[in-house]
Amino acid sequence: MQNIKDYVEANKQRFLDELLELLRFPSVSADPQYKEGVLNTAEFVAKKLEDAGADKVEICPTAGYPIVYGEKVFDPSLPTVLVYGHYDVQPADPIELWDTPPFEPTVRDGKIYARGAADDKGQFYMHVKAFEYMMKNEQLSCNIKFMIEGEEEVGSANLGIFVKENRERLKADVIVISDTSMISLENPSLETGLRGLSYVEVEVTGPNRDLHSGVYGGAVANPATILAKLVASLHDENNHIAIPGFYDDVVELTAEERKALNEAPFDIEEYKSDLGIANIWGEKNFTTIERTGIRPTLEVNGIWGGYIGEGAKTVLPSKAFAKISMRLVPNQSSEKITKLFEDHFQEIAPDCVTVKVKPHHGGEPVVTPTDSIAYRAAEKALTDTFGKKPIPTRGGGSIPIVALFEKELGIKTVLLGFGLDSDNLHSPNEKYGIENYLRGIETIPLFHKYYAELSK
Amino acid sequence: MQNIKDYVEANKQRFLDELLELLRFPSVSADPQYKEGVLNTAEFVAKKLEDAGADKVEICPTAGYPIVYGEKVFDPSLPTVLVYGHYDVQPADPIELWDTPPFEPTVRDGKIYARGAADDKGQFYMHVKAFEYMMKNEQLSCNIKFMIEGEEEVGSANLGIFVKENRERLKADVIVISDTSMISLENPSLETGLRGLSYVEVEVTGPNRDLHSGVYGGAVANPATILAKLVASLHDENNHIAIPGFYDDVVELTAEERKALNEAPFDIEEYKSDLGIANIWGEKNFTTIERTGIRPTLEVNGIWGGYIGEGAKTVLPSKAFAKISMRLVPNQSSEKITKLFEDHFQEIAPDCVTVKVKPHHGGEPVVTPTDSIAYRAAEKALTDTFGKKPIPTRGGGSIPIVALFEKELGIKTVLLGFGLDSDNLHSPNEKYGIENYLRGIETIPLFHKYYAELSK
Repeated sequence: MQNIKDYVEANKQRFLDELLELLRFPSVSADPQYKEGVLNTAEFVAKKLEDAGADKVEICPTAGYPIVYGEKVFDPSLPTVLVYGHYDVQPADPIELWDTPPFEPTVRDGKIYARGAADDKGQFYMHVKAFEYMMKNEQLSCNIKFMIEGEEEVGSANLGIFVKENRERLKADVIVISDTSMISLENPSLETGLRGLSYVEVEVTGPNRDLHSGVYGGAVANPATILAKLVASLHDENNHIAIPGFYDDVVELTAEERKALNEAPFDIEEYKSDLGIANIWGEKNFTTIERTGIRPTLEVNGIWGGYIGEGAKTVLPSKAFAKISMRLVPNQSSEKITKLFEDHFQEIAPDCVTVKVKPHHGGEPVVTPTDSIAYRAAEKALTDTFGKKPIPTRGGGSIPIVALFEKELGIKTVLLGFGLDSDNLHSPNEKYGIENYLRGIETIPLFHKYYAELSK
Repeated sequence: MQNIKDYVEANKQRFLDELLELLRFPSVSADPQYKEGVLNTAEFVAKKLEDAGADKVEICPTAGYPIVYGEKVFDPSLPTVLVYGHYDVQPADPIELWDTPPFEPTVRDGKIYARGAADDKGQFYMHVKAFEYMMKNEQLSCNIKFMIEGEEEVGSANLGIFVKENRERLKADVIVISDTSMISLENPSLETGLRGLSYVEVEVTGPNRDLHSGVYGGAVANPATILAKLVASLHDENNHIAIPGFYDDVVELTAEERKALNEAPFDIEEYKSDLGIANIWGEKNFTTIERTGIRPTLEVNGIWGGYIGEGAKTVLPSKAFAKISMRLVPNQSSEKITKLFEDHFQEIAPDCVTVKVKPHHGGEPVVTPTDSIAYRAAEKALTDTFGKKPIPTRGGGSIPIVALFEKELGIKTVLLGFGLDSDNLHSPNEKYGIENYLRGIETIPLFHKYYAELSK
């Protein structure tokens, strides 16, 4: 029997090669042209689960992309850990900003550059390799179930149905998700909250066709101008979101809670210099950590209208569009916020245009408990690997399925993320540190061990 | 000898076929992929000028696309008419909104649908066919020169140099341009003014890379949001342009001039219904005719940033862009306005972003005299063809070279346009009425005749 450290050391090249292979699949769920790539990824994942020793491996069909399931249930008296992850990735655009192609993973300076490296292929695959170790070395201390989906980046539309229809199969004591980040390898941390999401697309229509801006300009509402005015009005001069009722359900933290949150290591000058910005931006009276952790936000994810090609075209466009997402905090409701947005946007649109608001997807905010067995097991495992107790943090991102699992399965989640905020998730040159990957594989069996021990 | 009416009647099918052939060339000057198409168009135009009887036909090279020149100077005692037109066309985007392909001209309901049908192929080619008639029937009453360029839609960057270097060759008494519209076939009109243009592209940069909107949203300025705020601030609540000094040089019309202008037939309900809008928009205290004729405007011609593909992507983009053009009226200066815009835009940008303003092209506003021989000759010619005296109007569009000709050659221009505002210039489904085309060919020889007579 090898201990995990030795096993990782002995197998690290293979672990890396397998991840690179997984990263070569272009599994962009948002774009139909990658359908084949997404489906092939599901098959690869199923194969690897089987190779590692999972039973009942199945590529479960859904109305969209399949969910890969596998399990090792060997002792009903032991607790069961359900591992959730996703094998789909974000679109790679803007492709021209990648230093190396997004689906040709490249190792530079100890980091793996590829779309999905950290989000979430590199992270869920740590669980597959940790499971392989536990199987080969008879170190399995909990039952384990895997549920790896292919539609996380498009809102997990079919996961809810799957979960409802598979309550018995998915029965577990805790869910573990590695799809978040830690402060740094020197400052391990554990996320204890995730924001929810409302995502909408707005369409502003002016004239029924594109017009010559010389002939009609100045006399007919330009939907791009009106859209700019509408978007501009969504934040007030203090960068508060100006949608009536938006903050009604927001849980305000106590002064102590805010103080504790702001004790996490954070260097504003380093932050600005990393992003190349002269100044930060955000809601008045809140710190950067608070703005991304405990406050709701509204961001334009995309805006377009009119002529966007080379050179100049004097057109007054017929339509302009924006994709807008709002991050939600406890106790905001995604459905309610989407409705508030929709009503407000219709309300403020002038009568010289028509507007449509199309809800994309949403998810509810969650707070994970820090006094649970699962949290304490994760804390102990991280302390063993990193030699330092992890700092509890509030993540800015959203994993809508955490709330879904809690509601449908009654199971809490522990967010055992090994990424870094600087991993360029959803951006060009996404990366994942090899050390983060290997340390993750090291940590996971310890989590299972401590979880079983503390559950006794 | 045939009179022009009979000649047009006898040759109308050929006139149409030749125009369709010309329209098949995809001469998009803004897009380098059409280079071959633009160059082939120049050759076609040169060939047709030669066929019609022009001397000294030459495809004159420039730093960009060539200028096609040809002339018939047969009697130095007669006045000389210089015909200007352009053989390049606007880009066809958004291509999916065309009912028939932009470069496969189609005749429906007596109208020719194709990119460039009215702007300007169908209009300058009337002069080639009218010239053919005058040559074949010994009806030439003035000397004639043709200068047909290929860069009008990208700002005529090389025309100024050509004009300066060819002052002698281009010597003429009047310039005639058919590149504007009339009110209707029932209400012929003559444009007596054109707006100038300042065209800029703005780039707003926030963080140095695209970011995950969950991790950074709410704490880092989103360039799309900031761009929206900047664009929104460019018009105040009365839709006045809010750039300090913007209106300083604007010549205000007298109450009588405004009254005369507003006497042109105009039905606001028809206007709204044609455009499919519930309400008009524009500068307070001005009518629609005034807004498009005598007032400067600022329009967003294109806006883009972030993820604009299918589905949803939670990105906080690094950059956002807009193409913005301003139409200018006498005595505004394109250079001065561009500078005012640039300074203002830099001034209002918050320090959490950086902005760049790139001037595209510009042109000066002009007013053409209504008491000139050329205007009176055009008025008489139109009265003959349409049975009704044309109404003087102020066009909203810009033909920057009119000011250039005046400055460099000291020659005034007459705007003998036969298009309609509803021709969808710069829009999908651009069209030109066959009747407009044929009536134009009929009118032009009359203009030459009256111009020679009135010049005596």
